[in-house]
Amino acid sequence: MVRVLIFGATGYTGIELIRLLSGHPDVRIVGGTSRDWAGRRASDALPYLSRKQDFPLLSIADMTEKAGEDLAFLALPHGQSALTAETLLEAGLKVIDLSADSRLNDVTVYQKWYGEHQAPNILEKAVYGLPEIHRSLIKKADLVANPGCYPTTVLLGLAPLMNLKELDTDCPIVDSKSGVSGAGRGAKLTTSFCEVGEGFKPYGVLRHRHIPEMEQELTRLGGRTIKVRFTPHLIPVSRGMVSTMYIPMRDDTSGSALREIITGYYEKETFVRVLPAGVYPDTERIKGSNQCHIAVEVDERTGWVIIMSAIDNLVKGASGNAVQNMNLMVGLEETTGLTGLPIFP
Amino acid sequence: MVRVLIFGATGYTGIELIRLLSGHPDVRIVGGTSRDWAGRRASDALPYLSRKQDFPLLSIADMTEKAGEDLAFLALPHGQSALTAETLLEAGLKVIDLSADSRLNDVTVYQKWYGEHQAPNILEKAVYGLPEIHRSLIKKADLVANPGCYPTTVLLGLAPLMNLKELDTDCPIVDSKSGVSGAGRGAKLTTSFCEVGEGFKPYGVLRHRHIPEMEQELTRLGGRTIKVRFTPHLIPVSRGMVSTMYIPMRDDTSGSALREIITGYYEKETFVRVLPAGVYPDTERIKGSNQCHIAVEVDERTGWVIIMSAIDNLVKGASGNAVQNMNLMVGLEETTGLTGLPIFP
Amino acid sequence: MVRVLIFGATGYTGIELIRLLSGHPDVRIVGGTSRDWAGRRASDALPYLSRKQDFPLLSIADMTEKAGEDLAFLALPHGQSALTAETLLEAGLKVIDLSADSRLNDVTVYQKWYGEHQAPNILEKAVYGLPEIHRSLIKKADLVANPGCYPTTVLLGLAPLMNLKELDTDCPIVDSKSGVSGAGRGAKLTTSFCEVGEGFKPYGVLRHRHIPEMEQELTRLGGRTIKVRFTPHLIPVSRGMVSTMYIPMRDDTSGSALREIITGYYEKETFVRVLPAGVYPDTERIKGSNQCHIAVEVDERTGWVIIMSAIDNLVKGASGNAVQNMNLMVGLEETTGLTGLPIFP
Amino acid sequence: MVRVLIFGATGYTGIELIRLLSGHPDVRIVGGTSRDWAGRRASDALPYLSRKQDFPLLSIADMTEKAGEDLAFLALPHGQSALTAETLLEAGLKVIDLSADSRLNDVTVYQKWYGEHQAPNILEKAVYGLPEIHRSLIKKADLVANPGCYPTTVLLGLAPLMNLKELDTDCPIVDSKSGVSGAGRGAKLTTSFCEVGEGFKPYGVLRHRHIPEMEQELTRLGGRTIKVRFTPHLIPVSRGMVSTMYIPMRDDTSGSALREIITGYYEKETFVRVLPAGVYPDTERIKGSNQCHIAVEVDERTGWVIIMSAIDNLVKGASGNAVQNMNLMVGLEETTGLTGLPIFP
Repeated sequence: MVRVLIFGATGYTGIELIRLLSGHPDVRIVGGTSRDWAGRRASDALPYLSRKQDFPLLSIADMTEKAGEDLAFLALPHGQSALTAETLLEAGLKVIDLSADSRLNDVTVYQKWYGEHQAPNILEKAVYGLPEIHRSLIKKADLVANPGCYPTTVLLGLAPLMNLKELDTDCPIVDSKSGVSGAGRGAKLTTSFCEVGEGFKPYGVLRHRHIPEMEQELTRLGGRTIKVRFTPHLIPVSRGMVSTMYIPMRDDTSGSALREIITGYYEKETFVRVLPAGVYPDTERIKGSNQCHIAVEVDERTGWVIIMSAIDNLVKGASGNAVQNMNLMVGLEETTGLTGLPIFP
Repeated sequence: MVRVLIFGATGYTGIELIRLLSGHPDVRIVGGTSRDWAGRRASDALPYLSRKQDFPLLSIADMTEKAGEDLAFLALPHGQSALTAETLLEAGLKVIDLSADSRLNDVTVYQKWYGEHQAPNILEKAVYGLPEIHRSLIKKADLVANPGCYPTTVLLGLAPLMNLKELDTDCPIVDSKSGVSGAGRGAKLTTSFCEVGEGFKPYGVLRHRHIPEMEQELTRLGGRTIKVRFTPHLIPVSRGMVSTMYIPMRDDTSGSALREIITGYYEKETFVRVLPAGVYPDTERIKGSNQCHIAVEVDERTGWVIIMSAIDNLVKGASGNAVQNMNLMVGLEETTGLTGLPIFP
Repeated sequence: MVRVLIFGATGYTGIELIRLLSGHPDVRIVGGTSRDWAGRRASDALPYLSRKQDFPLLSIADMTEKAGEDLAFLALPHGQSALTAETLLEAGLKVIDLSADSRLNDVTVYQKWYGEHQAPNILEKAVYGLPEIHRSLIKKADLVANPGCYPTTVLLGLAPLMNLKELDTDCPIVDSKSGVSGAGRGAKLTTSFCEVGEGFKPYGVLRHRHIPEMEQELTRLGGRTIKVRFTPHLIPVSRGMVSTMYIPMRDDTSGSALREIITGYYEKETFVRVLPAGVYPDTERIKGSNQCHIAVEVDERTGWVIIMSAIDNLVKGASGNAVQNMNLMVGLEETTGLTGLPIFP
Repeated sequence: MVRVLIFGATGYTGIELIRLLSGHPDVRIVGGTSRDWAGRRASDALPYLSRKQDFPLLSIADMTEKAGEDLAFLALPHGQSALTAETLLEAGLKVIDLSADSRLNDVTVYQKWYGEHQAPNILEKAVYGLPEIHRSLIKKADLVANPGCYPTTVLLGLAPLMNLKELDTDCPIVDSKSGVSGAGRGAKLTTSFCEVGEGFKPYGVLRHRHIPEMEQELTRLGGRTIKVRFTPHLIPVSRGMVSTMYIPMRDDTSGSALREIITGYYEKETFVRVLPAGVYPDTERIKGSNQCHIAVEVDERTGWVIIMSAIDNLVKGASGNAVQNMNLMVGLEETTGLTGLPIFP
């Protein structure tokens, strides 16, 4: 039994970790932290938990001090995560950081987009944790940086294509759409029902903090400098994320050829599905699952390729992927606890 | 391994059975029926199914002919279910009927609310399948009538109170609200997004077909004739159902006394949660799970009791409860495959 | 041209007043207040306003000091409204108070439900402003208390029936459902999209502050003490409110007889529609309009009557009704600026 | 008083015409057609209509025969509109065709995307009716082709930029998102609540019929062949449409320079708003109004320009724009009946 802690257990990614781990046969959540519920039980915040699934909630300080378990998930806001990660690593825990604090290799890039980094030393230990791409490194890591939700759609969608000579992947256009849970839990006017519930809008144009993360990882995949043109939008649903990506062709290719390449790339993957021609990813058919659905089309009239990829931002885009990382880090079968089907409708 | 068939596999309750059973360790879906997808594979209709989870789809006629498995779920419209149930029972399968065709003991009542019954002989074999109330009968049954979603909320909410001398439970007022999936899958103007997606309304006032079912089962629980005053409404969500029930007091009692009685009644139940004072059932915290949440308050100013109960209409109100029945019928631990937490948010 | 001020111009009822008054031929908004936008223009907060529709936003203190206009709408939280109303009345303005501060005749009742009253003197000047019932008083009033949204559905639905000998209207059961905008604008976890957007729940059971208001006005209509059994619920839509009301019969009557009585009662009213048998109020067909739709059915099996009434909580339940009051108070045709059709879909 | 007919009065664009025209001081709807409601009154289908706003509904055949009015709106499916338009034009009515039947100049293009054209003769009489661009032609037209919703967002967003030397506008990337009402009214599984209400997806990739319309009109604006790379998506709201458009820069320019150019282009327009830097179009702030909101940003890092434009697809994208055309065709002030503010929230 792997004994785990969840820091930030009552935020949306923390709650999703509880949901996924409660169905995991080899894991036991032994404690969590919560700013609002410290000193109480998880079932006070989440009345649907059974006695067996329950665990105590502490403050971050109290929890860090006591921590003598196997592994910790950090579902904390960026800026709060780094120091906690450092302390827990020193105490001998493996750490999966769902915040942005461990994702960027270059601390100056972090500082530009997020502000001061509280524990820059952890960056060299951190492994970027998208299992479909970095599986072997993750298995040996003590600190895994769980990818951002937008980068997950972009990297899974583009990874198989980055070095195809037929495509010019140097600067993809990425038009992304996210459900509201991506903004985290908390009392904000900008995510309140009447402000966003029956509307749709772009936001954070040119300024979204996932840009440097996408570029870092695409650059690594491409072996050359890659930039992205990224525009995020807000969808009035709790969960769901779609990225529609546009890439110019250099040489003739076809939808079926690209579909075959992507299918081949993910042949052994459990969670990535390449859709047949004419079928497109639909978050309504992914919700609650760790799957990523990918479609590709070639616009012969204009010489461009369209790649569409979709995930549940809280599962493959956060907590599900984190559990997948945990399985790899502790030597369990990678898909354990993650094979639940989407909840449709 | 229990080998099961799903009749009506591509409707919403069929799809939900697939979701639940795909996570059930002791069950294998070996086939299903679908009007629209007969002759193809389940994964053609539901692209998120893996090869291991896949199974063939036939017409009802073809499937009935071949059926040599252990148990069949009938997720068919009422009227279509009865004959199929009869045939499958004769072929030696156990049958769980999610339609209304097996629920009413009295065929004349069925005829009044639903029209001609195609196989009235099955009624005497059918056991009404709400496990929290009829567990022992279900264990021995070959044909179980899975309860309607509205009756499930009403029966679970009222069962503990039906014979309390302090309350007059002869004719409860039941004001219910259901998510849109309760209307089934299919091309209907009345459930299309723009007609119902940003609105709320009562419907089927005084005419809803779940009335005789509620009255039959409440009468059985009360040991005297019970009627209900029932008004259903449509909520703009896919899943979720709340019944708010009003009962006059005969003698003084208190919220905490009633809460204790209900808690005692469900003490050993895994899926029913009685909420503490001041906390009310919220479908957002139940979605996707087999739980039923119940709250009770006493209005001392006016001498009435308010009982609120909520479920996911597709899980405890249909497919989850059906799997619970299956577990009982084939001798498995009752909660197997059903302990998944709600998906929140 | 009537020159008006809007206190609380950037809350939801304030914004709705701006929408309605911008289409009113005889009114000009000359100023407003806003905590967050004081010192700026209304078009900074609402970019869709044209230059002609624009006006300055001040703090409450600054605005009250300067106020030399004809009439003020107070779309402020209760507790903040009373003192402002008092000052404006002294300055010679007519005042329409959309808060609860002017609604309850008895200051001790106010204190019990809302806390200390800041200006109890205004209560004796206040006229309860539901035009369909109190039209003649409103015409002569300087201070009108605009009704709460829940009471509006209840009073319009029950007023025609309160003194029918066939019905026992002494203690109606009122099961109400409201869109999220009823909770006001502001950063609250309890109204954020992911907490309520795909769910449904009762709230504030037995404790909702609209109870004393309903009872005060029903008592007035009935000429005897009336109580209500009231349970509010939250619908995941921005706008819309339905009350489903249950009343026992004393003597035989019929749906058509009651429908005729209610139709007669509202014969000359522009905004109240009594629906034909079998048609029920649907907020999706009311949204954005000042209409109230009412339906009634008699449950002969159980001897009870069901009355359903629906409004847009921000229009007939708040700002539309306030404009109707304004028209009466300043001698304009009552329906001016209010005949816009519902926005459907 | 202009006397108008609405063909297809009970579809969504027909219903929206009724809403807008009911508030228009110079227009009277004297009749409409409806497949489902022929022989009845409009108020039977839309219970919120008052007696004064009511009118008879006939079949298309009956209505066409009798038609002796001033102007007809054709809110019919493409394919059904052309013949009706021809007949009405011969009878001397002015016609505004909201279908696609009059939009494409080249009948062979129509045939490729829509199938056989029923009355190709009307094409040469038709004027493409986007008032902000073709105002003078519309004023003299007898037959106006009301633009498609997607093309409206694209044309209004790009028109000011098509001949700027700093930009390469030969083949814009257009990533669009539409509310569900864009699919029309009707019983379809693909637009039913549970299929789309809590999801998001691309659809009709590379095959959407608005592509030739966009290219025809952009080509006209650019004076050279323009193509578009167009991907539509479905948003789970009734109303609202956003297009996010990507264009490569040829020479340096800035967001403020482009904002100024677009602002200048629309200086005298009532319905187009150019948003300040950092503010982005939000359909929640446009719903129900005839406005189009446009924002522009320059991505200096990658040398591309992003243009975002948003409308209510049923108003500026259909019925509101049609009323604007009507005003021009009959010599009324262009904005009459169209200045209603957005309904927010």
